[in-house]
Amino acid sequence: MIVVKVGGSEGIDLDAVCRDMASLVHEGRELVFVHGGSHRTNVVAEKLGHPPQFLTSVSGYTSRRTDRQTLEIFEMVYCGEINKGLVERLQALGVNAIGLSGIDGRLLEGRRKDALKVMHKGRRMVVRDDLTGTVDTVNVDLLRLLLDNGYTPVISPPAISTNSEAINVDGDRAAAKIAAALGAEQLIILSNVPGLLRQFPDESTLVEHIEPARAHELMEHAEGRMRIKVLGAIEAIEEGIGKVVFGDARIEAPVRAALAGKGTVIGPR
Amino acid sequence: MIVVKVGGSEGIDLDAVCRDMASLVHEGRELVFVHGGSHRTNVVAEKLGHPPQFLTSVSGYTSRRTDRQTLEIFEMVYCGEINKGLVERLQALGVNAIGLSGIDGRLLEGRRKDALKVMHKGRRMVVRDDLTGTVDTVNVDLLRLLLDNGYTPVISPPAISTNSEAINVDGDRAAAKIAAALGAEQLIILSNVPGLLRQFPDESTLVEHIEPARAHELMEHAEGRMRIKVLGAIEAIEEGIGKVVFGDARIEAPVRAALAGKGTVIGPR
Repeated sequence: MIVVKVGGSEGIDLDAVCRDMASLVHEGRELVFVHGGSHRTNVVAEKLGHPPQFLTSVSGYTSRRTDRQTLEIFEMVYCGEINKGLVERLQALGVNAIGLSGIDGRLLEGRRKDALKVMHKGRRMVVRDDLTGTVDTVNVDLLRLLLDNGYTPVISPPAISTNSEAINVDGDRAAAKIAAALGAEQLIILSNVPGLLRQFPDESTLVEHIEPARAHELMEHAEGRMRIKVLGAIEAIEEGIGKVVFGDARIEAPVRAALAGKGTVIGPR
Repeated sequence: MIVVKVGGSEGIDLDAVCRDMASLVHEGRELVFVHGGSHRTNVVAEKLGHPPQFLTSVSGYTSRRTDRQTLEIFEMVYCGEINKGLVERLQALGVNAIGLSGIDGRLLEGRRKDALKVMHKGRRMVVRDDLTGTVDTVNVDLLRLLLDNGYTPVISPPAISTNSEAINVDGDRAAAKIAAALGAEQLIILSNVPGLLRQFPDESTLVEHIEPARAHELMEHAEGRMRIKVLGAIEAIEEGIGKVVFGDARIEAPVRAALAGKGTVIGPR
């Protein structure tokens, strides 16, 4: 069992990811696919006249400002365009894929943050109406039900809050929770860079390997989006995933490359 | 077992539909929900700079011109915004809803029309690149798997072609296929009119009841969108559904009203 998360940034070759996923499924691998959609969400939000905004928390994490209108645009892109596009591609490759958001069957349930402490123009502010949160529980029964009946789940945020509101959650951290809940051997996180970079975006500063016990050290180097990726990896390792690999989604056979140790490996080589 | 289809036209009160659906589920009724999204698709397509176009077949049926870009906008609205909005509402009402398109798990599989004979400015034309079709088979095993495990399916077009392309299919006719495949007692089709009207849009011309054997006669009166609704009903009756009700989705408790015989009843009163 492997959980593969593919990001939603520009430059990612979803066709190559799907071909690779399909060939692994045909070899008998059990896969769960988690995806993002950030770049397309930005494009569509701009076109729909509700441009994207981002918040930086006081602890230095960046997240999408998610008011209700943004959440609905987010759902259109993640659960509509991207999710169904991936399911269609996989079906055409002979994989019986089934697309789900975290709301469906309460697949990803968590807490909504009722107060977000952010930095805005150098000042601390509190945002109270943001529809963001974190995943606490994964409906493993639903995933097992589908997997045991031959379906390959293709999962997308949003999650659902304990009060049943749709909430935007980080896709990498959601993938880490899913991998942990399923007891997956590996979590592979693919994006539009070769792995974790000591000095983003300098690709020659790729971190090739790090022992799980030292994963925290990566946080010293991580900036912006990378910080939350490292946080997800640390959480996954803490929850018992043996190995997390950050790989490149812009290449042919990106999942196999990551399985072969290309990228940043956290865990045994 | 009841299949409820709710349309996507303006004026429909989805909150009222969901409240009614939830109270029926809590009473122990087994429900499957099918929905549309035509009005919102028109609005979003317009905003995204790809305005909606419609085709009229030589036999008088109207359908959305579905090129690839339209299909993706369609998926954004139907599978993203509307589907997840309904699942979220139902979850908040204590129903463990799960949203699926016809692509997911090949839930709705059919044939793509490779040549569409249409009338355009009084002339017959053939359209070859339209991504539309009809549903031939329903993945009943998947629906039963979910229903038997306590999930309420919320289903939306598109369907998937035998060649694994996403295809736009009529929601009413898809609902009829689902109802027939599940052996449902009733199919309820809710829209923004009180039922079938002899002279659309004159609501005083409501057809209150018609014997299944005489359902074909309704086609004489039906125009535009109504023709395809009647066709769906006829197909449902022919496939063994005891009763089809066309009801009003603009009122409080619209499903219960239809169950009580308000609207157009095709079948025993």
